[in-house]
Amino acid sequence: MTLEAIRYRPGSLQILNQLLLPQESVFDEIRTVQDGYEAIKSMKVRGAPAIAIVGCLSLAVELQAGGGGDDLVSFIRDSLSHLTSARPTAVNMGRAARELMEFTENESMDKAPEQLRESVIGWIEEMLERDVSDNRKIGNYGAQHILSGVPRDSVTILTHCNTGSLATAGYGTALGVVRSLHALNRLKRVYCTETRPYNQGARLTAYEAVAEGFPATLITDSMAALTMRERGITAVVVGADRVVANGDTANKVGTYQLAIAAKHHAIPFYVAAPSTSCDLSLESGRDIVIEERPAEELTSISGVPIAAPGIEVWNPAFDVTPHQLITGGIITELGVFLPSELQAALTGRLTAL
Amino acid sequence: MTLEAIRYRPGSLQILNQLLLPQESVFDEIRTVQDGYEAIKSMKVRGAPAIAIVGCLSLAVELQAGGGGDDLVSFIRDSLSHLTSARPTAVNMGRAARELMEFTENESMDKAPEQLRESVIGWIEEMLERDVSDNRKIGNYGAQHILSGVPRDSVTILTHCNTGSLATAGYGTALGVVRSLHALNRLKRVYCTETRPYNQGARLTAYEAVAEGFPATLITDSMAALTMRERGITAVVVGADRVVANGDTANKVGTYQLAIAAKHHAIPFYVAAPSTSCDLSLESGRDIVIEERPAEELTSISGVPIAAPGIEVWNPAFDVTPHQLITGGIITELGVFLPSELQAALTGRLTAL
Repeated sequence: MTLEAIRYRPGSLQILNQLLLPQESVFDEIRTVQDGYEAIKSMKVRGAPAIAIVGCLSLAVELQAGGGGDDLVSFIRDSLSHLTSARPTAVNMGRAARELMEFTENESMDKAPEQLRESVIGWIEEMLERDVSDNRKIGNYGAQHILSGVPRDSVTILTHCNTGSLATAGYGTALGVVRSLHALNRLKRVYCTETRPYNQGARLTAYEAVAEGFPATLITDSMAALTMRERGITAVVVGADRVVANGDTANKVGTYQLAIAAKHHAIPFYVAAPSTSCDLSLESGRDIVIEERPAEELTSISGVPIAAPGIEVWNPAFDVTPHQLITGGIITELGVFLPSELQAALTGRLTAL
Repeated sequence: MTLEAIRYRPGSLQILNQLLLPQESVFDEIRTVQDGYEAIKSMKVRGAPAIAIVGCLSLAVELQAGGGGDDLVSFIRDSLSHLTSARPTAVNMGRAARELMEFTENESMDKAPEQLRESVIGWIEEMLERDVSDNRKIGNYGAQHILSGVPRDSVTILTHCNTGSLATAGYGTALGVVRSLHALNRLKRVYCTETRPYNQGARLTAYEAVAEGFPATLITDSMAALTMRERGITAVVVGADRVVANGDTANKVGTYQLAIAAKHHAIPFYVAAPSTSCDLSLESGRDIVIEERPAEELTSISGVPIAAPGIEVWNPAFDVTPHQLITGGIITELGVFLPSELQAALTGRLTAL
């Protein structure tokens, strides 16, 4: 089976409520833009690509039900502005909103409202299809690249955080590579780190692995190097929040440490990300500002205190892995590139952020 | 102030109940060997050196109150056997029991019961004093060694797990080095990893740091490499469960990964351990068997489930850091040695395990 966290057909949208995972698997109906806004705001859906697609699809279903009446352009503009405000730091929603608004304004010049309605719905449905198909390409390119080094054997992958169906429009990026390897019957096992402090690995990646039937093992973040030494890891594959021009990559905190351990064990280290996550406007990782999050993420879990009262905490959400440590390559929907090849490979293909 | 987790004066013993930490600081009275047994069994006290000293002190207080009557040798033998059975894998209690029994049998040949009683109590009190004074030596040797590289500056230390007053007879090993640096007014800050899955860093080291007023910051295990790059770590100092002849060191899982990250950043990596933790009977770390612990340590915390149901788990309790990565040295009560110097430095000084 394939875990489908976003269930869309024309006029209908259901999303897997991530607030209840991993204990309960409940799909919530999204009927309106306001439903979409609330799902994003309350973190029923998370992960920048997933937020963008759920936001846009909530608009598509409300449009399908006649939302906006005859004043479509204003309705779409207001809806996109509202959706973008739910999690303003999730860049993908803002990018999708700008692109869709530009498309809407162009189309509105020569189309009647009902034609415009259909073409906007079509644009959003294409966005969903393209995101999923881009992820499938990432999965397949990554799998082939990893397998090219081991012609016959099954492979063992170590991954970090959650980059699967629960974080994207579907299929996933780094976990998409794992999915492709599994589909090819070449996945021996995937090790997933629990990914402190927010535990995306233990809660979400482990949930996807169980749901999909991947042979999978959960470890603490501190066991990754030991796992590399003792468990025959073929490759480390992680996602990216942002890849900059020289290949330096910002991703969930802990990625940098994994890359160092992979290098120590001469294990190839891959970053899997759509080209839309590449930001060629920044030259190096030094230009990336790292978000620091509240101490409570470390000092309590599900409301239960787990640390000594009064201790100071440092809680950076991301870290930057320098391109020298990305020894396997950067896996995009256009192919797998060495960090030094990335800029040339993508130049001209990206719309500005 | 100094956190005194084991409060002993002749005839009286109180221990800080670690089951209630870090939320509550409650001292429990230990009046008998049975009280000591139950405190060890229920893990009110943990850490192999602390278990041994609390076990022996519980015997001392019962002897002080007249326990054993005139049949002292049998009483002491039965008591030590009972205490050793509380946590049979904690080697220090077994070693102390053998040494104390040998002493008791020798003394019993030419001493009357009341003289024997006094000399056994004296032996146990000396054991407590020696353990604490050995730890103070470790702290001072380690601090001096670290400071020798930075003549004027204050230093920033990164440590792992709990190796302080809560794990030893007092003062601590790796955290004893931190304590000495703080006493010298040369500790800028100590970073402590939370130490998944049992969270000894977040619960115990953070508790000691707050109690002692160390400038201290809690991080997740995954943030250690980033902390080394961004926060000017002077040295990494960890404890040891066992150091073998070539210097390979078994310690809490995650230590190996820290040592790799320290090497990547050219930061000296130290192991702090009394010579009694050195086991010259094993040639290399390959001979050390690593205990694997239950999956539940990763999948729930304080009874709250935190991972996807059905996920497989690997939970090794320790890992082995090869001596090549112990670049700072091994800090013992006899001095600081390179791994290659350890065997010669200790030969002849150790009783067999």
